[in-house]
Amino acid sequence: MIVVMKEGATVEEVQGVVELLESKGLSAHVSEGAEKTIVGVIGPKDRVRELPLEALAGVEKVVVVSNPFKLASRAFHPQDTLVQVGNSIIGGGAPVVIAGPCSVESREQIIEAAHMVKRAGGQLLRGGAFKPRTSPYSFQGLGEEGLKYLAMAREETGLPVVTEIMDAELLPMMESYVDVLQIGARNMQNYTLLKAVGRSTKPVLLKRGLSATIEEWLMAAEYVLAGGNPNVILCERGIRTFETYTRNTLDLNAVPVVQYLSHLPVLVDPSHGVGNWRYVTAMARAGIAAGANGLIVEVHQNPKEALSDGDQSLTMENFEQLMSEIRRISAAMEPETAGALSRHS
Amino acid sequence: MIVVMKEGATVEEVQGVVELLESKGLSAHVSEGAEKTIVGVIGPKDRVRELPLEALAGVEKVVVVSNPFKLASRAFHPQDTLVQVGNSIIGGGAPVVIAGPCSVESREQIIEAAHMVKRAGGQLLRGGAFKPRTSPYSFQGLGEEGLKYLAMAREETGLPVVTEIMDAELLPMMESYVDVLQIGARNMQNYTLLKAVGRSTKPVLLKRGLSATIEEWLMAAEYVLAGGNPNVILCERGIRTFETYTRNTLDLNAVPVVQYLSHLPVLVDPSHGVGNWRYVTAMARAGIAAGANGLIVEVHQNPKEALSDGDQSLTMENFEQLMSEIRRISAAMEPETAGALSRHS
Amino acid sequence: MIVVMKEGATVEEVQGVVELLESKGLSAHVSEGAEKTIVGVIGPKDRVRELPLEALAGVEKVVVVSNPFKLASRAFHPQDTLVQVGNSIIGGGAPVVIAGPCSVESREQIIEAAHMVKRAGGQLLRGGAFKPRTSPYSFQGLGEEGLKYLAMAREETGLPVVTEIMDAELLPMMESYVDVLQIGARNMQNYTLLKAVGRSTKPVLLKRGLSATIEEWLMAAEYVLAGGNPNVILCERGIRTFETYTRNTLDLNAVPVVQYLSHLPVLVDPSHGVGNWRYVTAMARAGIAAGANGLIVEVHQNPKEALSDGDQSLTMENFEQLMSEIRRISAAMEPETAGALSRHS
Amino acid sequence: MIVVMKEGATVEEVQGVVELLESKGLSAHVSEGAEKTIVGVIGPKDRVRELPLEALAGVEKVVVVSNPFKLASRAFHPQDTLVQVGNSIIGGGAPVVIAGPCSVESREQIIEAAHMVKRAGGQLLRGGAFKPRTSPYSFQGLGEEGLKYLAMAREETGLPVVTEIMDAELLPMMESYVDVLQIGARNMQNYTLLKAVGRSTKPVLLKRGLSATIEEWLMAAEYVLAGGNPNVILCERGIRTFETYTRNTLDLNAVPVVQYLSHLPVLVDPSHGVGNWRYVTAMARAGIAAGANGLIVEVHQNPKEALSDGDQSLTMENFEQLMSEIRRISAAMEPETAGALSRHS
Repeated sequence: MIVVMKEGATVEEVQGVVELLESKGLSAHVSEGAEKTIVGVIGPKDRVRELPLEALAGVEKVVVVSNPFKLASRAFHPQDTLVQVGNSIIGGGAPVVIAGPCSVESREQIIEAAHMVKRAGGQLLRGGAFKPRTSPYSFQGLGEEGLKYLAMAREETGLPVVTEIMDAELLPMMESYVDVLQIGARNMQNYTLLKAVGRSTKPVLLKRGLSATIEEWLMAAEYVLAGGNPNVILCERGIRTFETYTRNTLDLNAVPVVQYLSHLPVLVDPSHGVGNWRYVTAMARAGIAAGANGLIVEVHQNPKEALSDGDQSLTMENFEQLMSEIRRISAAMEPETAGALSRHS
Repeated sequence: MIVVMKEGATVEEVQGVVELLESKGLSAHVSEGAEKTIVGVIGPKDRVRELPLEALAGVEKVVVVSNPFKLASRAFHPQDTLVQVGNSIIGGGAPVVIAGPCSVESREQIIEAAHMVKRAGGQLLRGGAFKPRTSPYSFQGLGEEGLKYLAMAREETGLPVVTEIMDAELLPMMESYVDVLQIGARNMQNYTLLKAVGRSTKPVLLKRGLSATIEEWLMAAEYVLAGGNPNVILCERGIRTFETYTRNTLDLNAVPVVQYLSHLPVLVDPSHGVGNWRYVTAMARAGIAAGANGLIVEVHQNPKEALSDGDQSLTMENFEQLMSEIRRISAAMEPETAGALSRHS
Repeated sequence: MIVVMKEGATVEEVQGVVELLESKGLSAHVSEGAEKTIVGVIGPKDRVRELPLEALAGVEKVVVVSNPFKLASRAFHPQDTLVQVGNSIIGGGAPVVIAGPCSVESREQIIEAAHMVKRAGGQLLRGGAFKPRTSPYSFQGLGEEGLKYLAMAREETGLPVVTEIMDAELLPMMESYVDVLQIGARNMQNYTLLKAVGRSTKPVLLKRGLSATIEEWLMAAEYVLAGGNPNVILCERGIRTFETYTRNTLDLNAVPVVQYLSHLPVLVDPSHGVGNWRYVTAMARAGIAAGANGLIVEVHQNPKEALSDGDQSLTMENFEQLMSEIRRISAAMEPETAGALSRHS
Repeated sequence: MIVVMKEGATVEEVQGVVELLESKGLSAHVSEGAEKTIVGVIGPKDRVRELPLEALAGVEKVVVVSNPFKLASRAFHPQDTLVQVGNSIIGGGAPVVIAGPCSVESREQIIEAAHMVKRAGGQLLRGGAFKPRTSPYSFQGLGEEGLKYLAMAREETGLPVVTEIMDAELLPMMESYVDVLQIGARNMQNYTLLKAVGRSTKPVLLKRGLSATIEEWLMAAEYVLAGGNPNVILCERGIRTFETYTRNTLDLNAVPVVQYLSHLPVLVDPSHGVGNWRYVTAMARAGIAAGANGLIVEVHQNPKEALSDGDQSLTMENFEQLMSEIRRISAAMEPETAGALSRHS
C-alpha cells in the first residue's frame, strides 16, 4: 500500500504517518518525489488495509497495490481448479452446460425437463426450489418438495442437480438432496451464508452480485475457500448499468479477467444476463468464445406457462440448436483458449 | 400493465395475448394505434407481473404502469408514518440524529462515545457488533459482547441503540439488547432476514442496497411491512456509480422521491455515502435541506485508532459543529418542508 | 404514448390531459382501470414526445411505447444494410476486420502497419490523425500530415482507410483523403458534426458514446441518416460502468439488440472496450460469436513505443493468431447467425 | 506514478521497466516489498502518463498518484476564483441564481421571463437559442433570432444572459450577444469547442458530462484554462446511473469534492439533475446546503406550453418560494461554509 501525501505536506505530517504505521508493527518507506512525498507500507496486507490513514493530517489518498484475495488468487494456486460434479469436470477441457427451468413447478415438469436437457447434451440440471423474489407476493418456490422432485429427476436421468440456497439454517437439509449449492446474486455478500457453505462438502456455484466488482466477487469466493471448501465455481450473470434495454448487462469481460486473476472456473448465465430469450443464444455463444468454462441456461418446455422467468427461457428446440452451435464454436477455438489452463502462462 | 405488440403483429398474435390473459382470469382491452396495437391488462397486479408475455409471438414489450409496492405506498397510507424510538419520533417535526462509532470496540469506547453523542444533541446511538466485512480476514465485530456494551451505554445515557442484524437466527438474542434493528445495504434483498424482522416488534432501519433502485428498496420495505412490522425507517446511504472519487454516490434525489412515493420516514447516511470525513458535513447539511427526517453519522473519539471506517468518521468537534449547523438549517426551512408531512398534498 | 394518471385523479384532471392533447391535434383514448385511469395518445410520435404532460395536475407518469428512431429502425427497412468500402462489404457474409495503430505516428510506421494488417487478412486500415485526448497536454495527432500518410498507406496496400473526424469544418479536407469517417465516442452527440457527416458521401463509422443508451446511439445514427447519408456502420466500444478493472465494459449484449432493432451493421471494438491487450483476443472472439459484422482492433508493430494506447494494442503476432481464430469461429457459426440477415425473421 | 510488478517478476523484467523509463528521460526508483516489487516514476506527469507500461513483460498494473489537472487545481491556485458577470460575483459570498426557460421561444416570452426572474431575485437569465436535442426531428431552437431576444431581455432588465454554444464556428457571433457561454453536458469533451471558448474573453459555464468523472470534468476545464480563459464556472447537472426514477442522478457529492480539488466556482442545476419539477426545489435547497456557489434553474411562466423541458420547469410561484428558502438556508450556514473560500485551509 502507498500513502500519497498532499503537496506541501510538512515533515511532521509525514512523520505522523510513519509513526502510526510503526506503532502497528508495519514498515514505512518514505520517498520524496518532485511534487509529492509518498510512503510505501510493507507488512501483512490485511492489517494494512484496516488503517484509517486518510484520517491523518497531510494525507491526500491511499493507494492499494495488492489484490485483497489470497486463496482465490492465481498467484497462490497457479493451476486451474477443476471441480468434479458427477461425471463432469468444470474448469478444464470442454465447456459444461447446466440447464433447466427457473423454478421447479411440479414433479412431471422437472422430470420431463431433465430428460430434454440430457437429450440435448446438457450435463447438469438446474431448478429453483427456494426462490428469491423482489416481491413478497410472488411465487416463492415449492421449498423442500421441489428438492425432492429434483432428486427424482436426477435418479431418472443421472444428471446432477444445482439449486439455490438462501438460508444457512437449511444447509443440512439441502445437502441431502442436491449436488451443487448455488449462491444467488442477491446473497453474494450474505456472509452468514458464505461461511455456512464454506463448511459444506458440496461444490458452490457463486453468482456475481448485481453491482459487485470483480474484486468483491473474488472476496466472496475467499469466504468460501477460507471456510475450507475448495470447490467454488464462479458465475457471471450480468451487472447493473444504465442500459435498460437488456434486463442486466452481461459482463463477458469478466471471463478473461477472472481467469487471469484466479484459478477458479467461471461459467456464464446468459439468461439472467440479458433477460430476454431473443438474445440468449447470441450471448451464450459469445460466452463460450470468451473462454468461459461453461454455461447455465434457463430452458422450459413451455415458456408461456412458466411460473417465473418465462420471458428469458429458451424452448427445447432453441436449446438443442444452441448446444450444437456451442460444440462447434468450442471445437473451433485453439486448444489453449477453449480450456483456460495454459492461457495465462 | 400494457402489452405493446410489434408493428405488423397479426390478428392471431393479438388474439394469443388476449387468450393467455383471459385464461389467467384477467381482462384484456385491445386498442389499435396508428402504428401499433396495444393491449391493456386489467386485474390484480401481482398476477399480472408474473406472466411471461414477452415469450408470446408478436409481442414487442411489456410496460408496467403500476408501482409494485402496496403497504409501502403513499396511496395506501397517505399520512406520514411516525416511528417512535425512546422519546424521539422519526418521521415528523425536527430531524433526528443517530450517531456513534462504526464498530463497538470496547465498553469504555462505546460508553464514552454515547456521552459525547448525547452532549452534542444526538438522539440515538449507533455501533456495530456484527460487522459485514468484504474480507473474511477483517475485524468482524465483538458479537454479543458488543451488544452488552451497547446496552450499558444506553443505561448510562438513556440513548436508544441501533445496530445491524446480519442473521435471522440471532433475532431473539438481538431483540433483548437493542432498540432499532438495522438491515445493512448488502442484506437489503436477504429475504430470510427481511421476513424475520417483519415478525419483530422492534423498528427496522432499512438501508438501501448499493445498486437497488428506489422501487426495489420499497419492495424490501414491503417484505417487512407484509410480515406485520409497520415501523420501517428507510436510509439512503449511497449507490454505486462510475464515479470513484467518493466511495459511493450519496443519492439525495432519493429523499424527495421516496417521500412522494411512500409514507415511510427516510434518513440519510453521509458517512457511508461519501466515505471520507472531509465531505461528510457538507452532505449531512444537504441531506437535511433535501428534506430528510434525520441522519445517521459515524463519529469516533479518535478516528485514527478506529478499528473500522476511521477514514469516514467525524471527530467529536466536527460532530458538534455539524449538529449546530443542522439545527439552524432545519429552522430555516419552511415548516412544511422541514417535516415531510404536508409537502405532497 | 400512454399517460398514467395518479390513483384518485379527478375527472377534471383527466379532462385537462385530453384537452391539452386535442389542442395539439392529437387523439386521446381514455381507459379506466381498477386502480388507475390511463390515457392513450395517438398521433405523430415526434410531436407526442415534446409535450410536457408531467407538468399537468393529476398525472403520475408518461410511458413511451414507440421507439423514437425511424430511418434507423428495422421496421422501416427490414433488410440488412450492406455498406461497401473498397472491395469489402460490411453487414453481410463474413466479418470484416479493421486494424491499425491508435495514432499515425510517421509515414514509415503507418505503411509498415498497413502491410502487416493486410498480410494477416485485415480488410481496412485504421489510424488516428486528429486525436481526442482527455488532457490538453497529450499528443494530439499529426493532423493533415497524418491523413497524407494514411493515403500513402492505402496506395501501397490497397486497404481503404478509416480515421476519426472531430471537427465539422475539416470535413471537405478529410473527405479528400479517407474512405470511412469515424465519429468517436465523445462526439456521439455532437450534433453539428453528425449533421455535417450526414451530408457526406463517405460511410460513417459511429461509435457508441460512453454512457449512451442503445436508443440514444440509434438516434445519433438517425441524425446522419436524416441528413441523407445511408451508410452508417455502428460500433460498440465499451460503456462506462462501476467496474474499473477493465477500462470500459464492452457491452456485447448491444450486438444482438441492435441487430434486432435496426438494419445497420454493427462492429465491435475490443481494444477500447477492455483497454488491456491481455483481454482483447478473448473479447474479439466473443464479439464475432455474438454475431457482430466485424471488428476494429488496435495493433502496433511495437506497442512499447506507441505514442498512444500502447497498453491495449496487440502485437502483429497476436493479431495474426486472432485473425485465424476469428475465421474458424465464424465458419463454425450457423450461416444465419454468422451473417445477421435472416436471424430476426 | 507507480509501476506494480507481478509477483515473481524477474530481475530482467524490472530492468526492462527501468530502461524504458530512463530512455524517456525519467527517473525510476525500485523498491522491493514482501510480495511485490514496485517502481516509482519521477518526472513531468504528462510524459509519465503517456507511457504504455502495461504492455511490458512482468508489469501487473500502473497506479497514478498525481491528479492530471494543473491550472484547475487548488494546489496551483489556492484562492477561490471569483468570476464577475455584470454586478454579480460567482464564487464567493452569497449564492448566485441563474434562471429562465429551457428555450427562448419568442421575444415576449423571454422578456416576460426575465422580468419575473429579476423580481424573484435571480441574478442572471438563461435561455437556449441553439438546442442539442436527442432527436433530429425535435425543436432545435430559434438560433440567432433567439440570441437577439436574449439581448433585448438583458436590455430591459439588466440581467446578464447565459446561453449554450454548440459550434466553434459560431463563437464570434455568439460573443456579440451573450455574457456567459455555456458548454452543455454532451459537449464536455468536444475539444474543438473547448479550445475555441478557451480563446474567448467571456466566462464559460462548463456542465459536467453525463458520465464524466470529476477528474475528466476538471480536465475539460483545463482545456479552457490552458487556452487562456481563466473564467470557468463548473456546473453539476446530474450523472447517469442505474436509477431511472429520476432522469439523472444529481451528484451533490461533487460539490465539496470539486471545491477541495479546485479553485473554480461550482453551480448546481437541479432541473436537469432530477428532470421533474416536483423534486427541483428540494434538490436546489440541498445544493446550496452542500456549499454550491449558486444554482441554474429552469422556470417558465406556463410550463404546460413550454416547447421543451416543461416537465422539469418551475412555475414562477414555485421559483419565488425557492428563492426565499435559499436565502434563509444560505444565511443559516456558517460564513465559512456558505462561501467556499476558507473551508479548505
